[in-house]
Amino acid sequence: MSKVSQPEVIRPSDRAPDEPRAVRLTRNYTRHAEGSVLVEFGDTKVLCNASVEAGVPRWLRGKRQGWITAEYGMLPRATHTRGGREATRGKQGGRTLEIQRLIGRSLRAAVDLKKLGEFTITMDCDVIQADGGTRTAAITGGCVALVDALRYLQREKKIKADPLKQLVNAVSVGLYRGVPVADLDYAEDSSADTDTNVVMTEAGGLIEVQGTAEAGAFSRTQLNAMLDLAEQAGGQLTRYQREALEMRG
Amino acid sequence: MSKVSQPEVIRPSDRAPDEPRAVRLTRNYTRHAEGSVLVEFGDTKVLCNASVEAGVPRWLRGKRQGWITAEYGMLPRATHTRGGREATRGKQGGRTLEIQRLIGRSLRAAVDLKKLGEFTITMDCDVIQADGGTRTAAITGGCVALVDALRYLQREKKIKADPLKQLVNAVSVGLYRGVPVADLDYAEDSSADTDTNVVMTEAGGLIEVQGTAEAGAFSRTQLNAMLDLAEQAGGQLTRYQREALEMRG
Amino acid sequence: MSKVSQPEVIRPSDRAPDEPRAVRLTRNYTRHAEGSVLVEFGDTKVLCNASVEAGVPRWLRGKRQGWITAEYGMLPRATHTRGGREATRGKQGGRTLEIQRLIGRSLRAAVDLKKLGEFTITMDCDVIQADGGTRTAAITGGCVALVDALRYLQREKKIKADPLKQLVNAVSVGLYRGVPVADLDYAEDSSADTDTNVVMTEAGGLIEVQGTAEAGAFSRTQLNAMLDLAEQAGGQLTRYQREALEMRG
Amino acid sequence: MSKVSQPEVIRPSDRAPDEPRAVRLTRNYTRHAEGSVLVEFGDTKVLCNASVEAGVPRWLRGKRQGWITAEYGMLPRATHTRGGREATRGKQGGRTLEIQRLIGRSLRAAVDLKKLGEFTITMDCDVIQADGGTRTAAITGGCVALVDALRYLQREKKIKADPLKQLVNAVSVGLYRGVPVADLDYAEDSSADTDTNVVMTEAGGLIEVQGTAEAGAFSRTQLNAMLDLAEQAGGQLTRYQREALEMRG
Amino acid sequence: MSKVSQPEVIRPSDRAPDEPRAVRLTRNYTRHAEGSVLVEFGDTKVLCNASVEAGVPRWLRGKRQGWITAEYGMLPRATHTRGGREATRGKQGGRTLEIQRLIGRSLRAAVDLKKLGEFTITMDCDVIQADGGTRTAAITGGCVALVDALRYLQREKKIKADPLKQLVNAVSVGLYRGVPVADLDYAEDSSADTDTNVVMTEAGGLIEVQGTAEAGAFSRTQLNAMLDLAEQAGGQLTRYQREALEMRG
Amino acid sequence: MSKVSQPEVIRPSDRAPDEPRAVRLTRNYTRHAEGSVLVEFGDTKVLCNASVEAGVPRWLRGKRQGWITAEYGMLPRATHTRGGREATRGKQGGRTLEIQRLIGRSLRAAVDLKKLGEFTITMDCDVIQADGGTRTAAITGGCVALVDALRYLQREKKIKADPLKQLVNAVSVGLYRGVPVADLDYAEDSSADTDTNVVMTEAGGLIEVQGTAEAGAFSRTQLNAMLDLAEQAGGQLTRYQREALEMRG
Repeated sequence: MSKVSQPEVIRPSDRAPDEPRAVRLTRNYTRHAEGSVLVEFGDTKVLCNASVEAGVPRWLRGKRQGWITAEYGMLPRATHTRGGREATRGKQGGRTLEIQRLIGRSLRAAVDLKKLGEFTITMDCDVIQADGGTRTAAITGGCVALVDALRYLQREKKIKADPLKQLVNAVSVGLYRGVPVADLDYAEDSSADTDTNVVMTEAGGLIEVQGTAEAGAFSRTQLNAMLDLAEQAGGQLTRYQREALEMRG
Repeated sequence: MSKVSQPEVIRPSDRAPDEPRAVRLTRNYTRHAEGSVLVEFGDTKVLCNASVEAGVPRWLRGKRQGWITAEYGMLPRATHTRGGREATRGKQGGRTLEIQRLIGRSLRAAVDLKKLGEFTITMDCDVIQADGGTRTAAITGGCVALVDALRYLQREKKIKADPLKQLVNAVSVGLYRGVPVADLDYAEDSSADTDTNVVMTEAGGLIEVQGTAEAGAFSRTQLNAMLDLAEQAGGQLTRYQREALEMRG
Repeated sequence: MSKVSQPEVIRPSDRAPDEPRAVRLTRNYTRHAEGSVLVEFGDTKVLCNASVEAGVPRWLRGKRQGWITAEYGMLPRATHTRGGREATRGKQGGRTLEIQRLIGRSLRAAVDLKKLGEFTITMDCDVIQADGGTRTAAITGGCVALVDALRYLQREKKIKADPLKQLVNAVSVGLYRGVPVADLDYAEDSSADTDTNVVMTEAGGLIEVQGTAEAGAFSRTQLNAMLDLAEQAGGQLTRYQREALEMRG
Repeated sequence: MSKVSQPEVIRPSDRAPDEPRAVRLTRNYTRHAEGSVLVEFGDTKVLCNASVEAGVPRWLRGKRQGWITAEYGMLPRATHTRGGREATRGKQGGRTLEIQRLIGRSLRAAVDLKKLGEFTITMDCDVIQADGGTRTAAITGGCVALVDALRYLQREKKIKADPLKQLVNAVSVGLYRGVPVADLDYAEDSSADTDTNVVMTEAGGLIEVQGTAEAGAFSRTQLNAMLDLAEQAGGQLTRYQREALEMRG
Repeated sequence: MSKVSQPEVIRPSDRAPDEPRAVRLTRNYTRHAEGSVLVEFGDTKVLCNASVEAGVPRWLRGKRQGWITAEYGMLPRATHTRGGREATRGKQGGRTLEIQRLIGRSLRAAVDLKKLGEFTITMDCDVIQADGGTRTAAITGGCVALVDALRYLQREKKIKADPLKQLVNAVSVGLYRGVPVADLDYAEDSSADTDTNVVMTEAGGLIEVQGTAEAGAFSRTQLNAMLDLAEQAGGQLTRYQREALEMRG
Repeated sequence: MSKVSQPEVIRPSDRAPDEPRAVRLTRNYTRHAEGSVLVEFGDTKVLCNASVEAGVPRWLRGKRQGWITAEYGMLPRATHTRGGREATRGKQGGRTLEIQRLIGRSLRAAVDLKKLGEFTITMDCDVIQADGGTRTAAITGGCVALVDALRYLQREKKIKADPLKQLVNAVSVGLYRGVPVADLDYAEDSSADTDTNVVMTEAGGLIEVQGTAEAGAFSRTQLNAMLDLAEQAGGQLTRYQREALEMRG
C-alpha cells in the first residue's frame, strides 16, 4: 500500500488526508429486526435493519437459492434543510434507487446465496442524520446487520451452513483541492473535485468502484492514489466490523 | 379525578391499570432540526423533528399567520414483521394519513398561529421502534420539539412574542378484559375491547377524543372511566414535558 | 337522558339545539346494487350502494368469515366550489381515506362476520350534494343498504342465518357558540368550536366517538352534553331506519 | 330523411328500430352548480354539473377567450357488477379519458369561446346508473347544463353577449342483427355488430361520428342507414332540450 | 367509387386532393421482434414491433382463443417541440390511450382469434418522427408486422391454421378549406376543418370511422366525399401491404 | 498504454479482446431535433435527440448559466423478450434513472455551462435495439448530437462563444473468463465477471468510472488492465466523433 500524506492541505474537518472519521457500530439497536445496527461515520448515522423472510422473489423460485435486497431512505430532516418525504411525493427519487441498488449488489457479494437457501433478507438502511457518506456507512453497517441475520438463521436451525463468504465494507475517497482524502464529510464532499465510492471485500478485493468527476476530469494517477486511500481505510473498517461482531481477527 | 384500581386483572405488561409506561424525552437528538426530540413510551420510540421554514402554504398567504403541519412515517422494520416502505409503494396509507392529520391538528392547538407569523413548522414523526401508542408518543414528544422550534425562532429574533399557548399531550386508554387501563402497549392494544386516544392540554382540556370499539360497543360509563385515566396520565405527561423543557412547574 | 335546551342561541338553520335535520331514506334508489339507499340529512345527500361479492380479501381466506368494507367519494361539485376529482389527481385524499375507514369499521359493528360467510360487502358512499355531516349520513344510510344486502343473501339462499347483530347510526354533535347542538349543517360546522361524530348501536352503545376541538379545548362536561344530544338523535335515527326497513319497532 | 322500418326484428327492449328510449332532463338537480341536470335515457342516469370558474388554463392565457372541459366518472356500482373506483386505482382508465375528451370537444362546438370571455366551464358527468349510451346522454344533458351556466354568467353580468351558438346532442345508433337501431341500451349494445356514436348540432350538422365494427365490417350503405336514424333521433333530442330550457322551438 | 378532383385548391404539401403521401414499409427493421416494420407515410415514421407471448390475459383464460393488443408511444422529440416523456410524467395521456385502443381494435379485426390459440400478440407502435397521421400509419404498418408474427407462429409450428382473416389499413381524410383531401400531413391537419380517420379491410369494409369537426360542423355529403377518398387510398395501402408481404394480389 | 492481447480466449463475438464493435454515427437522423444522431455500436442502436429550450430549471434561475439533462428509454421490444413500457407501468425503473443521471453528468462535462447561457438542452436517448452497451453508446452518440445543438445555437446567434470544452465518449470494458475485453455485447456482458463503464474526455481524462464485480471481486491490476483497454477504445471513439462532426483531428 502506498503512503499518502499531504500535510499542507487543511480539510474542513481538520483530519489528515488519510484519516477516516470515528466509526461506531451498535448492534441490536432495535429489537424486532433479525439484525439491527446503528452505524456512525462521524455525524452520519444510518440505521440498518435486516429482515429475514421465508421465500424468494418470483423470478428466483425453484432455483434453490436465497436473495438479498436493500431499501434506502432518508428521514426528511436528516439533512441541513428539510427534504420532501418520498412517501408523500409518491415515488423514490433516482438517487435513492441508485443507492439502494448499490447496497443490494454489495451485500450480495458477501454471501453464498445457495447456502442461504430460499430466504430473502431485506436490508433497510434509513439515514437518521446525514453528514456525507451515507451509502458507504450503510454498506459497512449493513454488512454487520447481515451477519447477525445469518447467525439468526443458523441459531434457529433454518439453515445449516454459514452463507457468509466475506465481509464487505465501503468508503468514499475524493480529491479535495487536488489532494486525495478519505471518508469525506458533507462539507468536503460538496467542494470536492472528484468523489469515488469504493466497495471492498475484507481481503481488499474490489466489488464496486464508482468515481465521478465533479469538476474537470481526473487522471489514472489520481484514481490510483484514491484507491490506495480506500484500501487503507477499508482495512480499518474491516477491523471495526470484526470487533463489533466479535470475530477473531 | 376518580380513583381507578382493578388489582385482580393482570395486564400483559404487569403494570397496574392506571400505570403508564416509562417515558423518556431526549432533546437535540439530531443536530440539523430546529427541534429534535426522541420520545420513548416504553419500547415505542419516535423521533420528532421540527423544521422551520419561512412562508406559509398558498391558501394562507397574506393572512398574517403561520402554520404547523405534521408528517408521520414508520421505518419498515419498526414492527414485529416488516411492513412495506410507503415510498416504494408510491403512496401513504390511510392509517398514516389519519395519524399525521391528528398530530397536525393537535400541535396547532398548542400555538397561537397569529403570533407565529408567516412561518411553517413541519413536524416529522418517524417511528424507530413500535410497541403501541406511536401516535400518542408522537404528539407528546412532538410538542416538546415544537417548543424548541418556537424558542429557536425567538432566539434568532425571527418572531417577538412567544406563540406557545399551552402544552399538549396524548395518551391511549382502553378497556382490557373490561377493565380501563392506561397507555396500552402493542400486546394489550391487540386484544383490547376498546381503544381511545385522548389529546389534552396541560390544563386538562380535551383537544381530541377518538374512541373505537374493537369488539361490541362501549358505554358512557366506560368512556368516563377511560377519560378519568387519561386525565391522570395526561397530568404526568405534562410534568415530563415541563421537566424536559426546564419550564417552571 | 339529560334535557338540553338553550332557547336563546339561534342556529344558522333556525333549528332548536337538539333538533336534527329532516331525514329521508330512499331504498332501491338504483337498480343494480344488492342494497341501494339515498340518504338525506337535510340538503346532504349520499348514495349508499352495497355490492355483494363472493370471496374475501387474501388475508381473511380460510378463516370462515366475511368482510365489510367501504369506499367514500364526493362528486366534484357536491360542494359550494368545485373540488378536484380524486380519480384525476391520482389519489384519494387523507380526509377521504379517514372517512371510508370510519364507515367500514362502523358497519362491521352491525354484523356477525362469521354468519356472513365468505362474502365481501363493499359499501360505496358517494356524496351527491354536501351540506355537512356526510360521514354520519353515510353510516346511517349505509346501514340500511347493508341490511338490504344481507336480506338479498338470505333470499338467494347464499347464507342461512341472519348476520345482522344490530343497526348502527351516526350523528354529529357540536358546540355552536358554546351551546351543544345536534346534526350540524355546513354553515354551523364551519363556525363550531367543537365537532364530535358519534356512531351508536340501536341500543345506544358507543361504537365510535370522535371529538375535535376546532378552537380552544372542550371540557368533560361539554363532551357529556354533546353525547346526551347524540343519544337522543341516535334514537330518532334508529326509528327512521327501522321504519324504512319495515322492521318492527 | 330515409324511412327506416324493420318490424320483423325484435329488439331486447321491444322498441321499434327507430324508437329511442324515454328521455328526461331535470334541471337544478343539485343546488351548488351553476348548471345541474340529471339526464335520463331510459335507465341510464347521468348527473351533469357545470362549474364556472374565472380564468382559463395556462396555455390559453391572454388569448381573450374561454374554455370548456369535461370530466366523466362512473359510480362504482352504476353497472351490473361493481367496477373498481378510479380514485382508488390511482388513475382514470382509457375509456374514461376517451369519453371525457369527446364530451369536451362536443360541448365546445356549442359555444363561441370568444364571447365566453376568460371563464372556464367544467362539466362533470357522473353516471349514477348505467344502461348503455352514457356518453351520448352526457353530451345531451351536459348541453342543457351548459346553457344554464351561460345564463348564469349573463344574469350575473359577468359576460354580455350570449356565447351559445347552437345546441348539440348525441345518440348511439347500431346494427342489431343486421338491422339499424337507434339509442341502444346495454343489452342491445353488448350484442350489436356495430356501434356508432353521433354528435350533432340542432341544425343536423355532424360534430362527431364514431363508428366501430364489433364483429366483421360494416358497409357505406349500413353507415348511411345508421346516420339516417341518428338524424331522426337527434331532432327529437333537440326538441327535448329546447323544451327543458323553455326555448322557443 | 366517385371521382374527386378540386384542382383549384393548393394543399400545403402541393399534393392533389386525392393523392396520399409516399408510403414505405420496411420489414425486419429490428431483429428481436417476431414482426418488425418501419412504416413511413411521408415524414411520419412509426416503428411497429410485434411481440408474441404464450398465454392470454386473465379474463380470457380457458376460452381457447388468443388476444391482440397494442401500445403506442411517441419519442419525446418526434414532434416540432419536445413533448414530455410519458414514463417521466408517470402516466400515459388520454390521446395515447385513445390511439392504442384504436390500434388494438383495428388489428383484432384482421385476425380469427380462435385460430390464434392461446397466444398474445402485443403491437408496440413507437413514433420516431411525426408529421400527421401517426395512428393511421401505425395501423397500416402494424398489420404488416402482425402478419409476420402470424407467419412466425406457423413456421415455428406453434399454431396450425393461418389466423389471418383479412388485411386492415387506415388513412386520414379531411376537409381542407372545404375540399376533401386524403392523408393529411401535420400542416394540413392543423388547419383542417374536419379530420376523419377511417380503418378499412382490404375488401373495403369499414372497421372504424372517426370523424371530428374541428371548426363548425360537417354534412352528410362532405362525410361521403371523405369516405370516397378513404376508399380510394385504402385500396392503394392494401396494394403496398400485399407487395411488402409478397402476397399474391 | 499497455499492450493487451489474449489470443487464446474466444469471445462470443469472435472479436479480439481489445477490438470494439463497428461504430456508426448518423447525424440528422430525425428532422425536428436541434441535434439528432443514431449511434450504433454493432447491433446496439440508440437514437439521441437534443432539444434546445430557452430557460433553465427553477433552481438555476438567475445564475447566468445553462443546463444539460438527459432522459433514457428503451423501446419495449428493443430486447430479446419484451419489457414492459415504463409509461404504462407509471414509473421509470431504477436502472433507467441511474443511466439517465449518468448520461446527464457525462454530457455536462463536455460543456462550459456559463457559455451556454440560459438554455436547457435535453438529450433524449431512446434505445431502438439493444445488444449491450446502450449507456456507453448513448453518451458517445449523445455528445455528437450535443455538438450539433451547440452549433445550432451559434448559427442562430442565440449564443456567441462556443460552449464546447471537449468531446466525451464512453465504453464498457470487462473481464470475460478473466480476460479484459473491450465493448461487451449482450452475450459477453451476461457472462462477464466484471463490467466497468468508463466515460472519458477526448484527452483521455476520466469523467466516470463505474466498475462492478458480477462474480467474486476484481483486483487493482485487473482494473488497470480494463482502464488500459478503455483508454485505447476511447481514442477510437473520439476519432469517430470528430470524423462525424467534420472536426479537424
